[in-house]
This record gives sequence, structure tokens and C-alpha cells, in this order.
Amino acid sequence: MELTVYLAGQIHDDWRGEVARKAKEKNLPLVFVGPQTNHDRSDQIGEEILGKQPGNVYKDDAASDINNFRTQVLMQKSDIVIALFGEKYKQWNTAMDASTAIALNKPTIIIRPESLIHPLKELSNKANATVETVEQALDVISYIFE
Amino acid sequence: MELTVYLAGQIHDDWRGEVARKAKEKNLPLVFVGPQTNHDRSDQIGEEILGKQPGNVYKDDAASDINNFRTQVLMQKSDIVIALFGEKYKQWNTAMDASTAIALNKPTIIIRPESLIHPLKELSNKANATVETVEQALDVISYIFE
Amino acid sequence: MELTVYLAGQIHDDWRGEVARKAKEKNLPLVFVGPQTNHDRSDQIGEEILGKQPGNVYKDDAASDINNFRTQVLMQKSDIVIALFGEKYKQWNTAMDASTAIALNKPTIIIRPESLIHPLKELSNKANATVETVEQALDVISYIFE
Amino acid sequence: MELTVYLAGQIHDDWRGEVARKAKEKNLPLVFVGPQTNHDRSDQIGEEILGKQPGNVYKDDAASDINNFRTQVLMQKSDIVIALFGEKYKQWNTAMDASTAIALNKPTIIIRPESLIHPLKELSNKANATVETVEQALDVISYIFE
Amino acid sequence: MELTVYLAGQIHDDWRGEVARKAKEKNLPLVFVGPQTNHDRSDQIGEEILGKQPGNVYKDDAASDINNFRTQVLMQKSDIVIALFGEKYKQWNTAMDASTAIALNKPTIIIRPESLIHPLKELSNKANATVETVEQALDVISYIFE
Amino acid sequence: MELTVYLAGQIHDDWRGEVARKAKEKNLPLVFVGPQTNHDRSDQIGEEILGKQPGNVYKDDAASDINNFRTQVLMQKSDIVIALFGEKYKQWNTAMDASTAIALNKPTIIIRPESLIHPLKELSNKANATVETVEQALDVISYIFE
Amino acid sequence: MELTVYLAGQIHDDWRGEVARKAKEKNLPLVFVGPQTNHDRSDQIGEEILGKQPGNVYKDDAASDINNFRTQVLMQKSDIVIALFGEKYKQWNTAMDASTAIALNKPTIIIRPESLIHPLKELSNKANATVETVEQALDVISYIFE
Amino acid sequence: MELTVYLAGQIHDDWRGEVARKAKEKNLPLVFVGPQTNHDRSDQIGEEILGKQPGNVYKDDAASDINNFRTQVLMQKSDIVIALFGEKYKQWNTAMDASTAIALNKPTIIIRPESLIHPLKELSNKANATVETVEQALDVISYIFE
Repeated sequence: MELTVYLAGQIHDDWRGEVARKAKEKNLPLVFVGPQTNHDRSDQIGEEILGKQPGNVYKDDAASDINNFRTQVLMQKSDIVIALFGEKYKQWNTAMDASTAIALNKPTIIIRPESLIHPLKELSNKANATVETVEQALDVISYIFE
Repeated sequence: MELTVYLAGQIHDDWRGEVARKAKEKNLPLVFVGPQTNHDRSDQIGEEILGKQPGNVYKDDAASDINNFRTQVLMQKSDIVIALFGEKYKQWNTAMDASTAIALNKPTIIIRPESLIHPLKELSNKANATVETVEQALDVISYIFE
Repeated sequence: MELTVYLAGQIHDDWRGEVARKAKEKNLPLVFVGPQTNHDRSDQIGEEILGKQPGNVYKDDAASDINNFRTQVLMQKSDIVIALFGEKYKQWNTAMDASTAIALNKPTIIIRPESLIHPLKELSNKANATVETVEQALDVISYIFE
Repeated sequence: MELTVYLAGQIHDDWRGEVARKAKEKNLPLVFVGPQTNHDRSDQIGEEILGKQPGNVYKDDAASDINNFRTQVLMQKSDIVIALFGEKYKQWNTAMDASTAIALNKPTIIIRPESLIHPLKELSNKANATVETVEQALDVISYIFE
Repeated sequence: MELTVYLAGQIHDDWRGEVARKAKEKNLPLVFVGPQTNHDRSDQIGEEILGKQPGNVYKDDAASDINNFRTQVLMQKSDIVIALFGEKYKQWNTAMDASTAIALNKPTIIIRPESLIHPLKELSNKANATVETVEQALDVISYIFE
Repeated sequence: MELTVYLAGQIHDDWRGEVARKAKEKNLPLVFVGPQTNHDRSDQIGEEILGKQPGNVYKDDAASDINNFRTQVLMQKSDIVIALFGEKYKQWNTAMDASTAIALNKPTIIIRPESLIHPLKELSNKANATVETVEQALDVISYIFE
Repeated sequence: MELTVYLAGQIHDDWRGEVARKAKEKNLPLVFVGPQTNHDRSDQIGEEILGKQPGNVYKDDAASDINNFRTQVLMQKSDIVIALFGEKYKQWNTAMDASTAIALNKPTIIIRPESLIHPLKELSNKANATVETVEQALDVISYIFE
Repeated sequence: MELTVYLAGQIHDDWRGEVARKAKEKNLPLVFVGPQTNHDRSDQIGEEILGKQPGNVYKDDAASDINNFRTQVLMQKSDIVIALFGEKYKQWNTAMDASTAIALNKPTIIIRPESLIHPLKELSNKANATVETVEQALDVISYIFE
């Protein structure tokens, strides 16, 4: 039984690579999908496909059309969602993806540092499980295969 | 991850062939489905299967039964819908297929010429993304696989 | 038992007023809702609320946000949808509203002139009933209360 | 036709009061509901009902149980959601409520200052409409009743 | 708490009147709705609204459009469905209405004579309860209000 | 694209075999499933698994548990439903299966002889298409693959 | 805003009366519904309506038809579910009602004594909130109206 | 056609092994999934992944997060649910899993000893079929493949 896991969250370090490597070490039958992790590409994709827009709000909206299309396709294909929050940035896409996943009954794990316990308390309460490390998130998934 | 794409829209030129060829050039793992593209066959299919009908309204309704059956089966199998509008014809089937896809949460791309921006504005606003060329639509889908 | 009826369709003559007057004559317990019928207001509403936009495509998209919001609120409150097609214009909003209503299992009546039988055949086939006059559409609804 | 509006967002100023007053001035038939706006009460509610918890993470989880219960009851009763983002705080509950509302097909308006265009671009793109002021949000709702 | 009850089934005797009278005697807060009970009207309604059709199959289809529209509107408004089967006729509309109600999670009671136990066994097994008399069906509903 | 087709209907002749043979001749990529076609086995299955029951109504209910279980599993796996009505028997299971399929948005074809046009008119009106022969039903499905 | 609350749980003491009295003292706009609380009536209802059954398993099944019908009607009318577990009995109906409510997205509160923490841990984890007293459950609901 | 079967129920003997062995003997194309069957592991999993908790209620809640995550993933992948009740223990997880499965329209079989007929009567009534032995449950599933 192969499971597809959507990895929502920040794109400023290689945490998705770490998840994939650890899953491989544990021989877990997982396929990983997620958002565009090249930040520039993600911000420019609207203009790159649709051409120059008349200002930032329009450029952002064009990029969002395409980023949201990607997320919708891939999340619908996923059996599990992991959403990782870090200490920097507003990370509203992470909150949006986790909340959407929960509303669609996708089993969802949140990874967040101890410092974010309070501001994330309601979202964390709605997720299936909340952990602090990538290792722990994979332990939760690995438990399915025991 | 192979994705199935329903190609809604007019059947008066070979745009579906163009989509398929370009997807192949880009090595995208896509399977394309869509309506009957032989216009005569699509109009006659009711009488061809059910026999002569007593007038055009009944002939049209018989054909529609079978065309709608086909669309429902194939759209339910699809992960993505592309709906192409051209400058000619009323294209209400295209509008119907795009609207149905959106209501069913199928990620949907509209292709339309600049001249149709105004009359399509509300439908375009509900789709995930609106572009002007087949090339752009495939760029949007291709972005999923980056 | 009072029923709410969404009246989708063109806004270039007073057909909604005719529906309301005839329903009143028949003492039908119906409440009617529908899109903005002042065409200018409908086209300008985006800029009127959000301010000047940098071109027509953006002005149209801003207006569509608000028109679609209105339609979604009112259609969710409706028990029945009537969609009227006339001989002029592309009427893609009418096709979109009728298709959305059908996809959401809202009982739907289409009113269209004989000249549109062929181009509307698939949508008509999916609606509950298709008639040619406002009078007939009200006869269909009136039948519920017999 | 009376509509119920859930007011998601920060609880650090009286924006909900402003919404209510302006709606009253415009004679809009709206009922407003929303989260607990007493911040202390919202943070303490878990311990106030369930008793002392063994540390902040458990106190937060207990409060979240009850805050999420309240939100779920009231959002299910709502026809429309307004989500207001300000410049301070992480506001993940606002993002969660807006995302949940959109996933449940609740018509949703986002209010956010210009400074937040970029970080909110994907969520804004999924909402029905995004505006910058409470006045504009009420203009959007008021348009339903024209 | 007032409940609306859809009374599906044959229209060849006054069993709906009997249900209504007995419910009134028991002071049950019930509103009853159901199909057109004038058989001729039900068969002619298509031609009466849409005009003469070119043969029976088309006349029947036109009538069905309008009968199905009525049923869909009223069943969506109902909290409970009672479906009564008698010994005569094929009663496929009764079977269709009961099956649709069950598929839509409407609490459903079947009334059928002992002679029909065997042919109705699978449908009966899917309904909430199966009884032999109108009196018993009202006893089941009356039990809700104890 | 392989499709699974549930064959609802009477079990008194080999029409399912005919469907399968014709589908094979046409090289259609179809898998067929359906109810237990051994009538005795279908009637006895309750007692065969659960033991002797205290009378026919209980024996029938025990059999129905297991027949309905089978149908629910297989219909959920199906992309298309064909429901065949013949001139004999009440065939309420066929009506139940077709109605359930339609309520669950399974594309549905009805096969019925001309003599049943009138009693099946409402159910026929809700199905996607109604034909008179197995050959025609396969023509409708075959059209998907053109 | 009046809310309807389904009170699932044992029927061996007057906890429902206590809930109603306390809600009245707090002036909460709540309507309470629940299962039949006369234990004998609940066990006999099948035979009382359908007549003598051939043994206990059939008597129990007949009663369950009618008890489940009642629960389905009333739970569909409810905005909130409270499920109370006591120390005696298996209380599988309470577990069934709470689980069904959660699966249907009904906001759900569990009341259980400290001694049941361990055996109820997974169900408790899925409910919105778990408390130990009727008073606390009403505090949670009362919080909605602050 | 391979089917996935979720085996809910107690973990105190090897009944799942028995199911698997008998399915293999019968050459049934079934894949079995289920909860963690190592009782200690199931109770400790919260602390094993998340670290020491401040008391039993928190330890239990942490374990439940992860057990419920596992169940949600695997039940969503399943075509059929078997829920086995034994004579010992409260088995509320079994009741919860069976009730959830039924609410999600998963075809469900209950296995329970004769002694539990009365306390399980309402849940049993909602399941597709109730049997007394593993052998009988497999007979019910085996019947699908006849």
C-alpha cells in the first residue's frame, strides 16, 4: 500500500529533502508531493506564463492562480498532509493548506517548534497530530505500516 | 503520477491534437479525454443508436442523452479540466462543462482569446486560471511536475 | 411552504418583473432572487468598491469577484433555479448558473426560444425541464402546489 | 431574507462593532457572529471550565477545544464569512477560519491592508473578494440586497 | 419541532388523506407533501404545459420532466419519507422515491402488505423500518415526539 | 482506460453473458460486475450463512443483508450502471439499484422493452439514457471510446 | 439564535432533566432532543408496533429499526451533540451516536467520569471537547453565546 | 478486483490472523489492514514519539492522536469494514470504528457472540450484516466473488 504525502510549508530550507531521505532510510512506501519550492519561480510564475502584469497586486494574483491550481491537483491526489511551520514568515499558505486538508478530511500532521505552541493552538487542535520534528512526523506515518 | 485531463470545448479545429503533441514534446505524463469531436457523429448519435426520431427537438434530445453520458463518465475519471473557448459559436457545452467541473472541485483552466474577456469574466473568475493559448495551458499543467 | 427561486439570465428586458407579477396573480408563495439587473452597475461594481483598475481585464475581474459572491450567496438560499436564454448575446453567465445549479442538485428549469433548441441541447437535457415561455415556467412551479 | 455573517479575525480593536454599526446605518438585514473577543477569556477558557492544566501546552489545547467548538457551531450557521487581517500578529486562526470557510463553500470576503497583499496572495485568490476596509466589505454584502 | 413528511406511493385510493386525518387526531406536528395524486393530471401535465407531443414516448417524457421536478423540490424539503406499496401495479415510482430517499439519508418508512415481503425484501432491508399499515407508520413517527 | 460496469436487473436469462460476449467482440475495455445470478443461492444465502430463520420474513431479511452488502461493495467500485427491465416480475431490486446509482451520480443506462415505456417513465427520465436492447446499451458505452 | 442539542447517552437517571433545568437557569436558547428515555418502551417498541416477534434477536431488531429511525430524524435536526458516558453498562449506543455525530461534522461534547479516560481515549480525542460534568458541558455551550 | 478490508476490534487474540489464513485458503483477493495490535505499543505510542507526558490523561490523548491518524488513513483506503466484538472490555474503539464506517457508507459487517445481541442491537441494525464467527464474515465477503 503506497501512500502519497503532500508536504505543505515553508520553502526556505531543504526540509522536504530531509523527509524524503529519512523515509527512504526507513523503507517507507511513500510518494511526496508539494508546492513549488523555488521561491522566485513561485512568485514569477504568473508573469512567466501570462506575461507582464500592471503592478504587484496583479502579478501576485496571476501567480496565485497557478500556485493554487498546482496545490489543488496535488492535494486531491494525497492520502496524508504534513504541514511544517517555522519561526520566520507569516506562512499563511501553510495555514491555508493545513486548514483545507482538515476540512477535506485528509489526515494531517503539523510540525512546529515549541515557540509556536500558542499562536497555532487552534489549528494544532484540529489536526490529527502535532509534532516538533520531521523525524517525529515520519514516526507517526511509519506507525501506519507496523 | 499520471494525470487525466478532460479537454472541453469546440470541435471545429484540431486544438486537442495540438495539446496532445505539445504534451508529448514536453514528456508530460498526461492522458487526454474529451467529447466526441466528429460533429456529425455527435449530432446523429441519438438516431444512430435509438432510431429515427419525430423531429429535431427529439433527435437533439436523444443525442444529448448519449453525449452527456459520455461526458459524465470521462469527467469523473479526470483530474484536470481544460475548457477552450473560440470566437465563433455559442459554445454552451463548453460553458456547461467548465461550470460543472468547477462545481465538482475539478481544477479547471480556461483558454479564451482576448476578445472574450468581457463576456466570460464571471466564469473565468471562478476557474483556477485563464490563459489565451494552448501552450500556456500546458505551461500551467507542466508547472505541477517541476 | 414558501420557496425561493433564483432567476438566472439576461438583464436586458423586464422578464423578472413579468415572472413576479404572474406569480402574484397565481398567488404562488414564491420569493424571487437573482443577479444585479442594472447592467452598468454590474460592470462597474468592481471599480466602484475597489477603486480604479489598470485596464479592462482587471476591472472585469474585480466586478466578477463581487457578482460571483452575490450569486453564490443567493443560489445557496434558493430551492429552485429558472434560467432564461434569449436570442441575443453569449449569455455564458446564464449557462454557468444553470450548470452550477444542476451540479448542486438544485431543481432547474430552462426557458429558451425554439431557435436555441440545437445549441442548448445538452444543457437542456440535464435540466429538469425546458420550456419556451415565462408562463410555462410558472406553470411548472405552480404544479408543485396543486 | 436575513443573512448570518461570521466575522473571523483579530480581537484587538473594535472592528466588529464598526461592522455592526455600519450595517445598522445601511439597514442591512444581517446577524453577526464570531469568536470570543475577550482575549483573556479566550486563552483561559480551557482552565476555567476544565480546571488547572499541567503546563501551557495543555492549557492551550484545552482552550482550543472550546474555541474550536464555538467556531464550528457558529460557522455552520453562517451564510457569509468575513475574515479581517491586520498588520500585527500571526493571525493563524484568521487564516484557518477563512480557509475552512472556503473549503466548505461559504462565500468569503477577506479584508487586509495593502502591506499584506504579497503574503496573503494565495488565500486572497481563493476567497470570493478581497478588500481593504470594513466599509468595502459591507458594500460587497450590501450589493446582494440591491 | 415541526417535521415535513413526503408520502411516496400509489395514487389510486385516499391513503394520504387517511395519514393526514390520523396525524391530526394524534396532534402530531407534521406537514405532508407528495406527488400529484390526480392520475390524469400527472399523465397529461407534459402536454398541458408544453403542448402536443409526437407520440406516447414523448408525451410520457414531457410529463416525467415535470413530475420529477416536483418530487425533487418536495423531497429536498422533507425530513422523513413514507413509501407505500400496494398489491397492484408496478409502482416503480414508489421504489424510485424510496431508494432515492435512502441514498440521500432521508429517514424512510416502507408500508407494504404481507404479500409483498419477498419481492421487496432488499429495499425493505435498506429502509429504516417496514410496516403493514398507515397506522403503524404514524406510530413510528409519533414515537419521535414521546 | 478500463471501466467497471454494474449490471443490475433480472437474473432469469443470460443477458449478462450476452453483454459480456458482445463487449468482447467489440474489444471494449470493460469489467462487468453484478448481483448473484443464481436465484436460489440469492434467496437462501441468509440461511446458508446465518442458519435457519424462524419464518420467511426473517429468512428474506437475512438474505437481503448479504445481497445488499454485495451490491453496495460492487456498485461503489463501478463507473457505469446498466439496469435491464424485462416484462415479467416486479423487479424492484432493478428499480432500487438504478435509482441508487442515479442518486450517487453514477452514469446510468436503462434497457427496457417498449411495453414498459409508461410505467418506467419517471425513472427513465432521470437515467442518462434509455434503450431497448443490450446491443444499444453497448453502443452507448462504446461511444465513450471513439 | 436558537440551537438544538441532541442528548445521547444512558437513560438510567435524570441527567437530561438536569441539563434542561440548568440551561433554563442560565437562560440559554436551547432546545433538547434525545432518544426514548423509558427503557422498557425502548426495548418493547418493535413488538408494540409490529407485533410479537419469534424470539429476542428479532424483537431487538424490530425495536432497533424504530429507535434508529428516531435518532436519525432528531440528530439531523441538531446543531450540537452531547454524549454522556457513565460507569455502568456497555453504552454502545452512546458510542455509536457520538461517532456518527463526529463523522457528520456535528460539534460534539463528551461527558465521562475520570475512570473512563483510558477506554474512551480515541473517541474523546475525536470529539470537540470532553468534560466530566453536565455543568461543564453547559459551560462549553454557554460560551457560544458570550 | 482486489478489495481492502479494515479489521476493527479487540487486539487480545489472533482473530486477524485467522481471518487472513481463511481468506488465503479460500483464495479471496483481499488485503487486510487494521489498528495497531500490540496493546502496549498502542498505549505508549504517544510518549514514544512525543516524549513523556504529565500524567495519564495527557499520555492517553497523545497516543490517541496517533492511533486515530492511523485508523483514518487506513479506513479511507478500505472497501469493507469488519468489526469484531468480544465478551470482554468496553470496546468503544470497535463501536467507534463501526459507526464511523457506516456513516461514511463503507459496507460493514459486525461479528459478535450471541450474548451481545441486546447491547449491540442498534449498531447491528445499522450495519449491513451481523454474524457470529469469522468464518461467517468471510462467507459474506466471499459471496461478492461468486
